Amino acid sequence: MDLELITIGTELLLGFTVDTNSAELARILASHGIRVVRRTSVPDSEHAIRDAVHEALRRTGTVITVGGLGPTKDDITKEAVAALFDGPLAFDQEVWEDILSRYRRLGRTPAGSNRSQAMIPRGATVLPNQWGTAPGLWLEGPPGRVVMLPGVPYEMRKLAEREVGPRLARLVATPAPIVSHVLRTAGIAESTLADRLGDVDEAIHPLTLAFLPQTAGVDVRLTSWDAPLEEAKRRLDDAAQEIRRRAGAHCYGEGATDLAAVVIERLERAGLSVAVAESCTGGLLAGRLTSVRGSSAAFMGGVVAYHNRVKTQALDVAEDVIAGHGAVSEAVALAMVRGVQARFGVEAALSVTGIAGPEGGSEEKPVGTVWIGIAVREEETALHRVYHGSRWQVRERAVAGALYELLARLPS
Amino acid sequence: MDLELITIGTELLLGFTVDTNSAELARILASHGIRVVRRTSVPDSEHAIRDAVHEALRRTGTVITVGGLGPTKDDITKEAVAALFDGPLAFDQEVWEDILSRYRRLGRTPAGSNRSQAMIPRGATVLPNQWGTAPGLWLEGPPGRVVMLPGVPYEMRKLAEREVGPRLARLVATPAPIVSHVLRTAGIAESTLADRLGDVDEAIHPLTLAFLPQTAGVDVRLTSWDAPLEEAKRRLDDAAQEIRRRAGAHCYGEGATDLAAVVIERLERAGLSVAVAESCTGGLLAGRLTSVRGSSAAFMGGVVAYHNRVKTQALDVAEDVIAGHGAVSEAVALAMVRGVQARFGVEAALSVTGIAGPEGGSEEKPVGTVWIGIAVREEETALHRVYHGSRWQVRERAVAGALYELLARLPS
Repeated sequence: MDLELITIGTELLLGFTVDTNSAELARILASHGIRVVRRTSVPDSEHAIRDAVHEALRRTGTVITVGGLGPTKDDITKEAVAALFDGPLAFDQEVWEDILSRYRRLGRTPAGSNRSQAMIPRGATVLPNQWGTAPGLWLEGPPGRVVMLPGVPYEMRKLAEREVGPRLARLVATPAPIVSHVLRTAGIAESTLADRLGDVDEAIHPLTLAFLPQTAGVDVRLTSWDAPLEEAKRRLDDAAQEIRRRAGAHCYGEGATDLAAVVIERLERAGLSVAVAESCTGGLLAGRLTSVRGSSAAFMGGVVAYHNRVKTQALDVAEDVIAGHGAVSEAVALAMVRGVQARFGVEAALSVTGIAGPEGGSEEKPVGTVWIGIAVREEETALHRVYHGSRWQVRERAVAGALYELLARLPS
Repeated sequence: MDLELITIGTELLLGFTVDTNSAELARILASHGIRVVRRTSVPDSEHAIRDAVHEALRRTGTVITVGGLGPTKDDITKEAVAALFDGPLAFDQEVWEDILSRYRRLGRTPAGSNRSQAMIPRGATVLPNQWGTAPGLWLEGPPGRVVMLPGVPYEMRKLAEREVGPRLARLVATPAPIVSHVLRTAGIAESTLADRLGDVDEAIHPLTLAFLPQTAGVDVRLTSWDAPLEEAKRRLDDAAQEIRRRAGAHCYGEGATDLAAVVIERLERAGLSVAVAESCTGGLLAGRLTSVRGSSAAFMGGVVAYHNRVKTQALDVAEDVIAGHGAVSEAVALAMVRGVQARFGVEAALSVTGIAGPEGGSEEKPVGTVWIGIAVREEETALHRVYHGSRWQVRERAVAGALYELLARLPS
């Protein structure tokens, strides 16, 4: 099935907002064998929306709009689309009850403007939105098929995954889905990984391979373009196995696997608890570990020792060690990891101390210099790294580096 | 002047690539008083490109295409556009010399396929590209005006800034730049903010107003569309003042101002140091504060007290307080904030304890329940909040909520 996407919002035309919804939605649709043949963005103008939907329906018969379903006056997608279907908006008691009960659960009172979100084009199917107040709407009639989704990325994604993708897939006779498989690596540069993989793209033909460098590591994406689902899956499995073989331990997972989740799972399996002591990453390492649901099974807590006084008082790093070696040093990284391991009574611990920039670098210790301390029971190590990039990138890379190095030292 | 953008590339329709070029180009054009009224993305297909350019020319008369000027077989923008102008491609010796000399400078030899980049539609003006091999092309004729730019982001931007923006601006009689001004708010829901602002959009006419909800707060964007620069700025200043008046303390800054940076700046100005104690946010609050460069001027450090034992041992929260009230309670939030204030010897402190989910909720304390503790010198408070959304959203909202509540209690 071919369709068109229309994203709505003046901010998209002004360039203040990058249209990430289109890409997200296209990927979800592709996984159901549905192809996006054109994407259009128009401003919050009723006639611009109406014209764009009208033209797209004439070309492909099916359109998904994203945005313009909120409670404020510039949210006019429903009006514009309803005009094409010759159906006025009507107040829908059931949708209003949903909005009310959502507000009750949150202990809040809806504003008067929320009432507009219960106005529904006549004949529309409501796609319930448990993640926000604007439901998705599905309208079919002589002009064609229009699905309206809210523009809040999280709500758009949930509705697309749970409602729109499966419903459209049921309308497709024999879907030949575009299927991708992602392998995630850490602790290795893109060019080094490419050298290791060598001529693997010939070995995996007709699948295609792409390198997707992220801040925290490099993803490798395999894609099958035109095989039936079962065959595509078999080919992807074979190719993934070959890539894992060549990439070795750097490949820590597949798909949306999160490095922190793998670390938590391995710790839990080995019966080890963990704590962290952070200076330059300032809480982000603990934040990454606790982003994993159920992380409390292994993660105890941590100390953000930004000021040197905290390193001494909360982590027992001797003042003369800091004075003698500097706060960014092997000795301090080791003292921090020992300190947090002892204080928190944990088997495993990580420490990070470094210079995230943009200030604070020197000839000897440039911006990006990071020492990572790792302790697993009695084994302890400190590793020196120099990460490139902005303050944000140095911090993200230090977090990923610390997680990867701990993982490499855990029982598999 | 109004025009349309067309970005070309199958990867844009598959969702593997997010279209950042459109946003970048729209911002550059806006600064020259040129308005993008529609954006379209089409795949690398000659008829799809030709149709999209044809339709856009009929609507607005001027089109900028991005992409499909490279040396490979799927680069067919020139052919598609030339067909509309009824002008065949011809080999251009001057462009070819430019490509050759570029390769010489880099010490490389051009591939045979590069020769196709010297094929130019008859009558086109060449916009020299010093940053890559594909020149920009400017074509005018009875069908309208088409400017073709390469899709490599850096080359696209340079050509847009140096060539396309200035050339189009010269065609506009009295250029009226599109100027926007963003006000950032926190601690208030979109619908409540809309109610507070009331009929402000009438008061600020002809400026327009848009609400841009983010996870951590709602941005309000004011835009001037057609006034000369000085007048636009004056109107925007007046309107911003009116909005600040109506939004009150919730409006913490303008433009790209970061809430955490405002908090750090206010603390520093008041000579107050700060520390944090986090449970459900697990380091993210400290991470946000330390994302601010120079945050060490006020931020001392923090404790991530994920496990209750850490709350007791590192923050002196009495065991019977946790047992009596539960870890997510006013009493524990207050004990945590007092504990970190005393231990770290700081004037200001924040604590967060809550249920980020997806597990751990109950009838009485649903997922999203958060207690925020705030201490500024001897004043201390704990606030109850229920945030909606995913684990990630609850944590982000709790971080923003805590920062906002501290800000509201600092000397201004």
